[in-house]
Amino acid sequence: MAPTLKEATGNQSSWDTLLPDLPKGPLCKYRRKASFNWKEMAVFLDGEDIIQLKNRIFSALESDPLFAHHPGEDLCREKYQELTFLRCKRLFEYDFLTLQKTIENPLKLLCLVSCVGMYDWSPSLQYLLHCGVFAGPILSASKRFADFVKQIYKMEVFGCFALTELSHGTNTKGIRTTATFDPSTQEFIIHTPDFEAAKFWVGNMGKHATHAVVYAQLYTPDGQCHGLHSFIVQIRDTKSLLPVPGVMVGDIGMKLGQNGLDNGFAMFHNVRIPKENILNTAGDVTPEGKYSSSVKQWRLLPYLAAAYALDYFCKSLFENFIEFYAGLLAKQRSQRQVDLGREIHALCSASKPLASWTAQHAVQECREACGGHGYLAMNRLGDIRNDNDPNCTYEGDNNVLLQQTSNYLMGWMNCIRDEAPFESPLGTINILQDYHHILGWKFTANSVEDCMDSSVPLAAYKWLVCYLLKESDLKLRKEKQSGRSDFEAKNNCQVYYCRSLAIAFIEQAVLQRYHDYTHDPSIPSTLQPVLKKLSALYGLWSLSKHLAVLYQGGYASGEQAGKFIQNAILELCYRLKDDAVALVDVFAPPDFILNSPIAKASGEIYKSMWAEILQGSKTLNRPSWWAELCINKPVIGRLRSKL
Amino acid sequence: MAPTLKEATGNQSSWDTLLPDLPKGPLCKYRRKASFNWKEMAVFLDGEDIIQLKNRIFSALESDPLFAHHPGEDLCREKYQELTFLRCKRLFEYDFLTLQKTIENPLKLLCLVSCVGMYDWSPSLQYLLHCGVFAGPILSASKRFADFVKQIYKMEVFGCFALTELSHGTNTKGIRTTATFDPSTQEFIIHTPDFEAAKFWVGNMGKHATHAVVYAQLYTPDGQCHGLHSFIVQIRDTKSLLPVPGVMVGDIGMKLGQNGLDNGFAMFHNVRIPKENILNTAGDVTPEGKYSSSVKQWRLLPYLAAAYALDYFCKSLFENFIEFYAGLLAKQRSQRQVDLGREIHALCSASKPLASWTAQHAVQECREACGGHGYLAMNRLGDIRNDNDPNCTYEGDNNVLLQQTSNYLMGWMNCIRDEAPFESPLGTINILQDYHHILGWKFTANSVEDCMDSSVPLAAYKWLVCYLLKESDLKLRKEKQSGRSDFEAKNNCQVYYCRSLAIAFIEQAVLQRYHDYTHDPSIPSTLQPVLKKLSALYGLWSLSKHLAVLYQGGYASGEQAGKFIQNAILELCYRLKDDAVALVDVFAPPDFILNSPIAKASGEIYKSMWAEILQGSKTLNRPSWWAELCINKPVIGRLRSKL
Repeated sequence: MAPTLKEATGNQSSWDTLLPDLPKGPLCKYRRKASFNWKEMAVFLDGEDIIQLKNRIFSALESDPLFAHHPGEDLCREKYQELTFLRCKRLFEYDFLTLQKTIENPLKLLCLVSCVGMYDWSPSLQYLLHCGVFAGPILSASKRFADFVKQIYKMEVFGCFALTELSHGTNTKGIRTTATFDPSTQEFIIHTPDFEAAKFWVGNMGKHATHAVVYAQLYTPDGQCHGLHSFIVQIRDTKSLLPVPGVMVGDIGMKLGQNGLDNGFAMFHNVRIPKENILNTAGDVTPEGKYSSSVKQWRLLPYLAAAYALDYFCKSLFENFIEFYAGLLAKQRSQRQVDLGREIHALCSASKPLASWTAQHAVQECREACGGHGYLAMNRLGDIRNDNDPNCTYEGDNNVLLQQTSNYLMGWMNCIRDEAPFESPLGTINILQDYHHILGWKFTANSVEDCMDSSVPLAAYKWLVCYLLKESDLKLRKEKQSGRSDFEAKNNCQVYYCRSLAIAFIEQAVLQRYHDYTHDPSIPSTLQPVLKKLSALYGLWSLSKHLAVLYQGGYASGEQAGKFIQNAILELCYRLKDDAVALVDVFAPPDFILNSPIAKASGEIYKSMWAEILQGSKTLNRPSWWAELCINKPVIGRLRSKL
Repeated sequence: MAPTLKEATGNQSSWDTLLPDLPKGPLCKYRRKASFNWKEMAVFLDGEDIIQLKNRIFSALESDPLFAHHPGEDLCREKYQELTFLRCKRLFEYDFLTLQKTIENPLKLLCLVSCVGMYDWSPSLQYLLHCGVFAGPILSASKRFADFVKQIYKMEVFGCFALTELSHGTNTKGIRTTATFDPSTQEFIIHTPDFEAAKFWVGNMGKHATHAVVYAQLYTPDGQCHGLHSFIVQIRDTKSLLPVPGVMVGDIGMKLGQNGLDNGFAMFHNVRIPKENILNTAGDVTPEGKYSSSVKQWRLLPYLAAAYALDYFCKSLFENFIEFYAGLLAKQRSQRQVDLGREIHALCSASKPLASWTAQHAVQECREACGGHGYLAMNRLGDIRNDNDPNCTYEGDNNVLLQQTSNYLMGWMNCIRDEAPFESPLGTINILQDYHHILGWKFTANSVEDCMDSSVPLAAYKWLVCYLLKESDLKLRKEKQSGRSDFEAKNNCQVYYCRSLAIAFIEQAVLQRYHDYTHDPSIPSTLQPVLKKLSALYGLWSLSKHLAVLYQGGYASGEQAGKFIQNAILELCYRLKDDAVALVDVFAPPDFILNSPIAKASGEIYKSMWAEILQGSKTLNRPSWWAELCINKPVIGRLRSKL
């Protein structure tokens, strides 16, 4: 009676059964414009089977009070961890996917993880870490663990995967936990030499795991190291959830996200395990060798240069504004006052986007460059990023603001066409006096060394501003000629034209001021060399994002131009490397103000982080909901029949 | 007796007095390498005066228990708002900057705001919003407010600046709050026509403000609108902090950051104010007219295309992995099994960075495209971003992983040089068989229309991979010839070479698979057109980031090539515009799962947000610390003598 799969995927009414219509509302009119039927697409891409699984998962969660939302509620981290664990346990009771079904179509596993993840990644990852990442290496190691695997899938034990250490993340060769074989008792002795070798960041370890797959260097009694191996190590008692003797285990604290998941740490003090608990050589962990650190400095040094250049620009623009504001208070009504207001408005409208985006990218780079530790809330890169984020929006969306600047610049085209003399009070558009002449400029540097002064990117920027102004103007006239309204015409000129123009203009203005400042003869000779390097780096790095346009418009040509610029950036990063810490010292707030263990002025990052973690009042304690793990075991599949 | 400023800035011992040495630790050895003295730089950039102000502010905060840090404490939002207010009030007691000093050097105001901001932006902004953004327009409006200004600076009233409305942010012309003049009583009647015109996002309004500068359209009794004007409107009683009659005022709830600050909303029901409370025409608010929305679609549509292409790649790679895993379980030891493992590892190592970065940028774009509402926690763009963020780090930092892929690719250079036949199990490197031939390819499209199929970017990618492989290999050999160690040589080849190679390779692999998939004749004819457009858009948009290299290496030349690509991207965005909602419908989870009022399938965003805000249990209530504002007034400058 049931239709075959083939019939079903091709049939409009079956799509409607699988995928009910979406609620009516303002989006209806946009939906009707589509060139295809979204239900047909969904069935085609996923297949009926996967869609049914999705429907089952989604409707189970929506009908289960344990998964109810609580709008406006400020869930504390502890409650969130408890809720996450209960939800993870509930997934065992739903048992959405039997082993058999997973084998038939492994994509269903991806589907399950992502469906629960779309609801909340914390329970989804907790489930995956236990059933997949912890169970996986045990499953594939040997049949002798068959009974233990059964315990895993009944949640009689709860597991985690312990590879990373506090001071060794990506570099697995640096792992220092040891497993020393004792032939007299046929045991391995698992040991953490010091807190920097504590297992760290391990998901499920903070509050819940009873067992861990632990990676350690295997030593034989002759002192010989046999490389990285993995072992099953019990860390908490399955009855009481208290740590077993010799194990210090706890929670690493708030993170920027995924706070339902309990990431933890553990130190082992000569913990003995039976020799059968060895899993294998770490063939499944890719040896990664020594890794480049040059990428990081290249990642961060340009932002340091940008901080100096933008700080100077901000202060000098603030002084311009004070002049303007004094005129306002004095009810000045001169033409200069009006022109000054327009010029400052154009500069502010573009420098706010430039500064807020640069800051946003810089914090994200720092976050990533610090690896996992940048993701720990205590290090405050999250606060800094999240507090900066609204700068991209308030007082006007960045993209809207940029249009004000490009409108201001486009307004000068009449003067350019009339070849009438013109200038602005602050002189930022005076380069346009030479518009026609500048458009004929070419990139002329003949070596990397030639590019090491900010005059080189500055000249390129002047050309860039004139070129983008010309192109924006052409595009706008073309749009208008084709009969479009003023609004529509302007609309179609934003991307690649007016928007790029506004960005290039403000970068040029920032660089011009910083170039003039750093090249002033009154700068102390002890400071001028480093300041000039910052100016050159900021200029070249900003310019490098426009390299395609330089080529496209014929300012640059041939392989060398681009290479000179890129190599000059790398060379400047290299030459500024030794000054980097001192350059940060100049503007870094005191440790108390910054309040970030990873950023302590002393550089004692691991000691500071470790001290702060141990300050947490709930770091080492047993969760109040321990009985939900140890006593009230889930009945696997209990809720499957309800679906 | 005191040294003059000039002597002081040039004197080593005075720098040491101003700026004590930083704590000793691992960073010492890097500090010693600097080419300049950081203290000299700091004094040169800021001047002694500013540094003294910084020191005063920093040490006051550090010595004040109200500003103590509480490591490991999970501060709820309400407590954080209370603490922020108390800290803001304390700034009045420190009175770090008298009006006189600010006039002498306005940069000191920037310094104060940023020093407190570095500690925490919430109290800093609360202070600035009251003393600057609220007080500013009142100060400059008329001398008749002199008494009110005094009240402001004594904190007898507490203010906010109410411009933005729930459904009108950047576009100030769209503001719908009205102020109707009633000649019979000489009053203005302030009125909010409906909840979409509620003042919204207003800093300090959520819990604290007693008065607001409100922007409204001025109407005269003849029904004539006279445009946007601003008015002082009382919103809460200064004695009890309860709302005054006719005003509904509350807190908009959790945000992604700055949660100490109370952003709020207000609706006015025919609230009467004396006519003297008018400030001015809104000449200080820039009229912004109609703004381009084309930028947004251009911002988001390529990410939609990327979602489709990456989703397909992820699923197909997962299937490859399942094949490999089955081989592992079956203890397969064939050469194919080994090669498959290496190829999958290389693909995973680069696709994880590609997918996690693309997702991170996509969420940030969505956040910004949603304006302030994207910053409201209830809309969950923050959760989504923060939960995705660790993907950029765990299982290996993205940049480190990319090195594994480039190492894999570089490993094929021997085969290329030997001109021996070679292939990989999944065929992703088979293009390298034609390495020498491909390096001679050129960009040949002659029109925008020519570029509208993904075969165009795909061909460009093949050239790009070969070119970057050639360049990386040359660079590596040059580094080695110059006597560098293997490690150092590899190190110096990352940026612009190996890293770009790995990224280009994986983008090419993703595009190749998606191109083949979307061009398969078995795709239903109803779906194929839109899928082909997605493939072309993903390819061109990804490729456009490499445009500079295409020019640099001679694949592209002349102005047209770049323009064709850019215009094809814009044209595809335009053609996909009508399909955008349906394309999202295909994979969007149900409303319950996504749990984001702004993303409701019906599109009823303002209704949904408004409903959710009113759900909050603390939305409308008076803060428990109200007496700290209404009764315990700060004694201005009380703590100044302690500095």
